[in-house]
Amino acid sequence: MGLKYKKEQNFSEWYSEVIQKAELADLRYNVKGFLVHRWWSVDIMKRMYEAYRKELDRTGHKETWYPALIPESNLKKESEHAKGFRAEVFWVERAGSSKKKLEEPLVMRPTSETAMYTMYSKWIRSWRDLPFKRYQGCNVWRYESQTRPFLRGREFHWLEAHNVFATKKEAEAQVNQDMQITETVMHKQFGIPFIFFRRPRWDTFPGAEWTYAADTVGLDGKSLQQPSTHMLGQNFSRAFDIKFIDKNEKEAYGWQTCYGPCIWRMIASIISLHGDNKGLVLPFNLAPYQIVIIPILQKGKTAQIKKACKDLTKKLEKENYRVYFDDREEMSPGSKFYEWEIRGVPLRVELGPRDLANKQVMCVARHNSKKTAVKLSEVVKFVKKLEPTVLNFLTKQADELLKENTRSAKTFSDLKKELKKGGFVRVNWCSVREDGESCAERVEKDFSAKVRGLRVDRKEKPTGKCIVCGQKADEVVYIARQY
Amino acid sequence: MGLKYKKEQNFSEWYSEVIQKAELADLRYNVKGFLVHRWWSVDIMKRMYEAYRKELDRTGHKETWYPALIPESNLKKESEHAKGFRAEVFWVERAGSSKKKLEEPLVMRPTSETAMYTMYSKWIRSWRDLPFKRYQGCNVWRYESQTRPFLRGREFHWLEAHNVFATKKEAEAQVNQDMQITETVMHKQFGIPFIFFRRPRWDTFPGAEWTYAADTVGLDGKSLQQPSTHMLGQNFSRAFDIKFIDKNEKEAYGWQTCYGPCIWRMIASIISLHGDNKGLVLPFNLAPYQIVIIPILQKGKTAQIKKACKDLTKKLEKENYRVYFDDREEMSPGSKFYEWEIRGVPLRVELGPRDLANKQVMCVARHNSKKTAVKLSEVVKFVKKLEPTVLNFLTKQADELLKENTRSAKTFSDLKKELKKGGFVRVNWCSVREDGESCAERVEKDFSAKVRGLRVDRKEKPTGKCIVCGQKADEVVYIARQY
Repeated sequence: MGLKYKKEQNFSEWYSEVIQKAELADLRYNVKGFLVHRWWSVDIMKRMYEAYRKELDRTGHKETWYPALIPESNLKKESEHAKGFRAEVFWVERAGSSKKKLEEPLVMRPTSETAMYTMYSKWIRSWRDLPFKRYQGCNVWRYESQTRPFLRGREFHWLEAHNVFATKKEAEAQVNQDMQITETVMHKQFGIPFIFFRRPRWDTFPGAEWTYAADTVGLDGKSLQQPSTHMLGQNFSRAFDIKFIDKNEKEAYGWQTCYGPCIWRMIASIISLHGDNKGLVLPFNLAPYQIVIIPILQKGKTAQIKKACKDLTKKLEKENYRVYFDDREEMSPGSKFYEWEIRGVPLRVELGPRDLANKQVMCVARHNSKKTAVKLSEVVKFVKKLEPTVLNFLTKQADELLKENTRSAKTFSDLKKELKKGGFVRVNWCSVREDGESCAERVEKDFSAKVRGLRVDRKEKPTGKCIVCGQKADEVVYIARQY
Repeated sequence: MGLKYKKEQNFSEWYSEVIQKAELADLRYNVKGFLVHRWWSVDIMKRMYEAYRKELDRTGHKETWYPALIPESNLKKESEHAKGFRAEVFWVERAGSSKKKLEEPLVMRPTSETAMYTMYSKWIRSWRDLPFKRYQGCNVWRYESQTRPFLRGREFHWLEAHNVFATKKEAEAQVNQDMQITETVMHKQFGIPFIFFRRPRWDTFPGAEWTYAADTVGLDGKSLQQPSTHMLGQNFSRAFDIKFIDKNEKEAYGWQTCYGPCIWRMIASIISLHGDNKGLVLPFNLAPYQIVIIPILQKGKTAQIKKACKDLTKKLEKENYRVYFDDREEMSPGSKFYEWEIRGVPLRVELGPRDLANKQVMCVARHNSKKTAVKLSEVVKFVKKLEPTVLNFLTKQADELLKENTRSAKTFSDLKKELKKGGFVRVNWCSVREDGESCAERVEKDFSAKVRGLRVDRKEKPTGKCIVCGQKADEVVYIARQY
């Protein structure tokens, strides 16, 4: 009744099994690469969206909603961007029962720059309109060849923030704020640690001047890209004519940034970083049910036990906890234990005849399996104390995993050895401009690994030669296999 | 600086002007029939979604998210449904830069029955799985020929609930609950009154046994359809093979209902029912900003006035009000007044030098333009008292409008006269089955009006002959011009 696969032995199967048995998603929908999201994952994602929206609002962003369809002519405007996304779009060219041809081919948004920026050019007129900070939470579509639930899909759910500033300096400050938002929400509230890398030139977002991307670990030690924030410079503002009259009454192009936290992919990290061999593990802030109460019934005491469970449910609900009294008669307590463990409910409360007699319950914390007998009168106090410890535990555990998975290599054969262990490998590197790309191709060919870029949180000085070509190293980069 | 058009003289232009000047939406996006939703409307819609989700959750529904794309083969499964929607779909047949043909043509969901029910048949096995109550909040796409912001669009935002029951009786009870939810949320929280009509046979949702639809008034006295709830019977469960083992261990088809509250269209009613010649009027629960504080500056007292405004902002924020201190230097107080009136902010607070001296502010309520001088120490109390009165006022005003716009007609020429005045006209009618359709066609041809159906909230007995054909009247129906 529990899980068949072990996380550390069969990560990939374990991951699929958790998604299925925790009823996060169903893969059987009859369009390839499209997921049906069951209520357990939707509830979690809604809480994640809420946390992100709150922080984006707090930092001066406003939410706007844009059409799902983008005209081909918009997509074409910024040439690098068009080149980067054209291969990934679904086309909408006809409508109605006679499949009448539309005036212009449309694409389902793969990302919304080219929908938003045509409007920005109509709204932004003066320096007084800046900074202009907007975002939307939405689904986007990409025609990916390989798909995997919550990791890479033909449809996924994310947020995208698109800002315009009067100066380059302000735009740079926004990129820093985006990284801070990632820390505040993704790390502090979801327990997902990361390292922000400045991507090499050849791995920059199409149309951007540079890209900072947050990578985390967790999948077979592979790296997984979480939010990225892009300094767009004036590439798009020139292509989309986003101009304003500055304080000196001169016309100028806006400086732009964009930031794309992907709620859908963060669930992948929550599953893989926090989950264990019993299934999902959720912190209180994200769990659809925070506490399940399971009666252990005995003939003659059924009514009393149920009443005690109901009273406790009410008491905890009064304290604003999300509580589920699992009263299903067709299931044994044991199978209920398994179910809620797989689904990651932070606290299970058992109440049987002996507990009733002792005016207590048995509390079982999901994250560490610890059992504690707690007096009925003390349950609220117990839960309040437990609540913050779960997220702390999960965050610390994930932080340590990331730390353990960040190592150094001095030689090419060292690199091979370290990459086998998984995680990020720190090496000396010739260049992250175009001229370093051939070395990166070598690494990708030999090890299926990628140069993730330069650490953003600290300046690192190379002390020798490039680990691949042996020429003078200008940089220290991190290499990892990635999902 | 205010509005150019008057609501009672030029409703249509007034409506467009409010949408534009309150910055609810921008119509200039370069795909016909697709709206860009600016932050003011998104903020309102998010509050509306929240209210609806809360009530759907409370009544035992769970949210699930389905793909935006539906295979043609799904759409075809229920023949009436396919016939009804095929003319309205956008087709997705190709993907990628070479426009590779997909395995099967897909449609962008016009509604999600045929996406959801393929999955329901996989999940529902036993009577223990029932009732099965699910919903999603999402955008849908329909290839409409005539479009108008928030009323009819090629893309709009709604919720759709899709439920399965073991018995017809339970399904019928759900239809009643859906109507109750409409009352609890749309009427009680948004101030939009309605009459639920059982639609005539010829106007029933494609694939449903019968349809109850809530109509309201407001646009030139025209009727506007708000949520409808449909008794699907077993039509879809047979087409999609949604079977379960009942308590007697026999296989049976599920009884289904669906309910579609359209947040997007409810904004149309909020604009048109509550709005006035100064613009939008919002109740406290929906307003993005509930209170704006506007300083009336005077040389030498600027700093003091601003400080008093800031202190008051903080004080009101502490009470959880959404407050905006409008400190923009480039605008006069007068133009700020106009702006926030057009946007419908429930309360404007002005603070000038004389107010400062008197330790007071001038409070101006949006809904009735009433000005009140309020001591600074009394502002919180004043706001708390004002808050519920706004929604009460708006609801009562809208209720009365609907009541005034519901009249009777005894003859065909009476009907003509009454329809000219607008609203719903009560008449004797031969039949709401197929055999009554020719009379309905006559009414539509002569008056561009439609039979909205039988009142659901009361049984009405016809007392004479059909107003059109003169044959025995079996029913009392309501006729209205509709948007």
